[in-house]
Amino acid sequence: MRMIDIIIKKRNGEALSEEEISFVVDGYVKGDIPDYQMSALLMAIYFRGMNIEETITLTKKMAYSGKVLDLSSIPGIKVDKHSTGGVGDKTTLIFAPLIASMGYPVAKMSGRSLGHTGGTIDKLESIPGFKTSMKDEEFIKQVKEIGIAIVGQTEDLVPADKKIYALRDVTGTVDSIPLIASSVMSKKIASGSDVIILDVKVGRGAFIKDINSAKELARIMVGIGKGFGRKIVAVLSQMDQPLGFAIGNSLEVMEAIETLKGRGPKDLNELIVTLATETLRLININYKNEDIRAKVMEQLSNGKALAKFKEMIKTQGGDVKIVDDYSPLLSAKIQKEIYSLEGGYVEDIDAYKVALSVMALGAGREKKEDKIDLSVGIRLYKKIGDKIEKNEPIVTFYANDVEKLKRAQEIFREAIKIGNKKKDPLPIVLDVIS
Amino acid sequence: MRMIDIIIKKRNGEALSEEEISFVVDGYVKGDIPDYQMSALLMAIYFRGMNIEETITLTKKMAYSGKVLDLSSIPGIKVDKHSTGGVGDKTTLIFAPLIASMGYPVAKMSGRSLGHTGGTIDKLESIPGFKTSMKDEEFIKQVKEIGIAIVGQTEDLVPADKKIYALRDVTGTVDSIPLIASSVMSKKIASGSDVIILDVKVGRGAFIKDINSAKELARIMVGIGKGFGRKIVAVLSQMDQPLGFAIGNSLEVMEAIETLKGRGPKDLNELIVTLATETLRLININYKNEDIRAKVMEQLSNGKALAKFKEMIKTQGGDVKIVDDYSPLLSAKIQKEIYSLEGGYVEDIDAYKVALSVMALGAGREKKEDKIDLSVGIRLYKKIGDKIEKNEPIVTFYANDVEKLKRAQEIFREAIKIGNKKKDPLPIVLDVIS
Repeated sequence: MRMIDIIIKKRNGEALSEEEISFVVDGYVKGDIPDYQMSALLMAIYFRGMNIEETITLTKKMAYSGKVLDLSSIPGIKVDKHSTGGVGDKTTLIFAPLIASMGYPVAKMSGRSLGHTGGTIDKLESIPGFKTSMKDEEFIKQVKEIGIAIVGQTEDLVPADKKIYALRDVTGTVDSIPLIASSVMSKKIASGSDVIILDVKVGRGAFIKDINSAKELARIMVGIGKGFGRKIVAVLSQMDQPLGFAIGNSLEVMEAIETLKGRGPKDLNELIVTLATETLRLININYKNEDIRAKVMEQLSNGKALAKFKEMIKTQGGDVKIVDDYSPLLSAKIQKEIYSLEGGYVEDIDAYKVALSVMALGAGREKKEDKIDLSVGIRLYKKIGDKIEKNEPIVTFYANDVEKLKRAQEIFREAIKIGNKKKDPLPIVLDVIS
Repeated sequence: MRMIDIIIKKRNGEALSEEEISFVVDGYVKGDIPDYQMSALLMAIYFRGMNIEETITLTKKMAYSGKVLDLSSIPGIKVDKHSTGGVGDKTTLIFAPLIASMGYPVAKMSGRSLGHTGGTIDKLESIPGFKTSMKDEEFIKQVKEIGIAIVGQTEDLVPADKKIYALRDVTGTVDSIPLIASSVMSKKIASGSDVIILDVKVGRGAFIKDINSAKELARIMVGIGKGFGRKIVAVLSQMDQPLGFAIGNSLEVMEAIETLKGRGPKDLNELIVTLATETLRLININYKNEDIRAKVMEQLSNGKALAKFKEMIKTQGGDVKIVDDYSPLLSAKIQKEIYSLEGGYVEDIDAYKVALSVMALGAGREKKEDKIDLSVGIRLYKKIGDKIEKNEPIVTFYANDVEKLKRAQEIFREAIKIGNKKKDPLPIVLDVIS
């Protein structure tokens, strides 16, 4: 078998066989196939796609390219979650303790991710002392004992995806639905949970801009999950404006805690309740939807989800005091509040441009090696459709550098539009695919 | 400027600017752009194409990526020729001395080429003593003195094409019209001739199988040539069955000499006369076509073209005696003649399968480093449409290895079809584009 023939076959629009996909994944991980052939194949896949059989095969070969977690020693139905990534997305920080507090173990391995702000792991690291790296045995032990752990993905999990993703990132081959689906699902399969909840973001602040592509991706990922015998559901959520009000690592941790205290922003709260409801439906579909929603909402207001979050922080070495006293999370040197020059309505907040603005403050990384500033970010006071008075605050910037603040403000000015038109608030949940 | 943005721009179907193409070619030659990004861009170009401006710009940047030959010290109108490659293609060996014998200097740099048999340079090397590598000054001096030189392309001519072609060859991005056109034309431009004759092969034994793609490629190459102020014409020629009867390096040299003696196969002779006529038309369009054809045919029968070929062999150190005594060219240890088991007509000779057969004998190279056997090959006795009697010879194999001969015979059996249907002979010249 020769890589060149496989490239040409895919380039000509033919489906690859299991043997061919195996040859590609194994050969690339071992280093027998050079980057330049792999990137040509990835670009051919970008243009020609992959059918569902090819995508499932690719997922399987990637999932088993390294160690696969065995969670069978943990009693109960284990839950995992994945978000395709958005601006102000702190969902995991709330969802995981909420589900764990209801008796379903959450064993979550998370990435650092490239992006406008950090990933879940970066966010958790803004809690003083919080440890995000541990051995698989410790990870499993913690989930067994307290029902929850959120840690960084270990090095030996899905090495094929690590290597392929790094190449896609620099060769313009990220935006391919079968490649995205197999990348996400190979990690979920290798992570070993029984139930998988996918949060597929759609809109200007997500890498998928249109609902049809999002539906296609969701259907493929759900199909793959079922193919591997997992219970799986995908929630499509709106990412045209940022999720919640806070964007920036430590600011998002604060907002997550507020949500766990039952005081979260309306859109974030609604998304959490939907994700949790769908999870519980998957676990036991005999419940009525209204009953599950009520149960979930109660769990957010009675402090039990918050208690589980505290327990996780404590077990992972973090400072539990931050749950009651946010001051260690507010360490940016400069706080600058901006007020509206006129009264009216918020007509637009472009999530992508907001992301560029927090990126300018130093909250995200462009390259894997970049250091990020966990303390900087933006806190919004309004969402699309909200009324605003003259001199009312629109936003606070949290910055550590005057020049970066200036640049962030300039970008933010392009992100927001205040005018006379009253717009309807954007729906947060767009669809559920199971 | 970032390579990733250029890849994504082309991937999305946009045209690249002159600055962007310059960045790519310079960066790749210098080694600043890695192979894996270049191959992703090449695959995006495969799918998205390039418009004529982009293709001309790419040609220019490649042509000037290294040394450009200055032939201005050679008096007269200098002629160059290029074939896109076919099975049994010994055209240059005849065309070049023919044109030179009529007073127009031919300064031809030729490749070794990957393929089923060798390139022009390999063929010439089957002449004992023939020297195919020389310095640019020697090359120019020889053309000045005897009006002809055929040598291997020097290392510093169009380094961008060398590097890009090597990458295309292993990444499934050879079959792209703008990439082919810019590769061919960058070498022609850098080689410095005033008149360029292109022989674009079409059919099963060529890499372009259909006439429309061939026309498109020809039009683009002619357009590029004119853009650089050259006189240029493209002849589209049929490559469904092999050209002439001989396939294999030294066998083709013999057939070329036979043609220079006025005893060439009909199809080869007709192609040569057309190529030469079109060349002379380009040089002086006042002549009538019939007059030019007559002049060309005379030059093949009066021995002047042959004399020029001998002069070239002598000047480049080769053994002139082979022109009269072919025995040094017939050094393969085994000669095996095959006879027809039945009478009828030759219904098909598939050029591609014939090529695979001579490849099996060892006449061609798959990789640049491969050694090729110049003495092996096939001599046909019939062409499509010919009548054949029972026990009449069909083909002679020239081999040095019994196993290879066996394999070649097996493949050849698939290439030829003898039956009852009388087919018309295939036309050799399909179109002329100027």
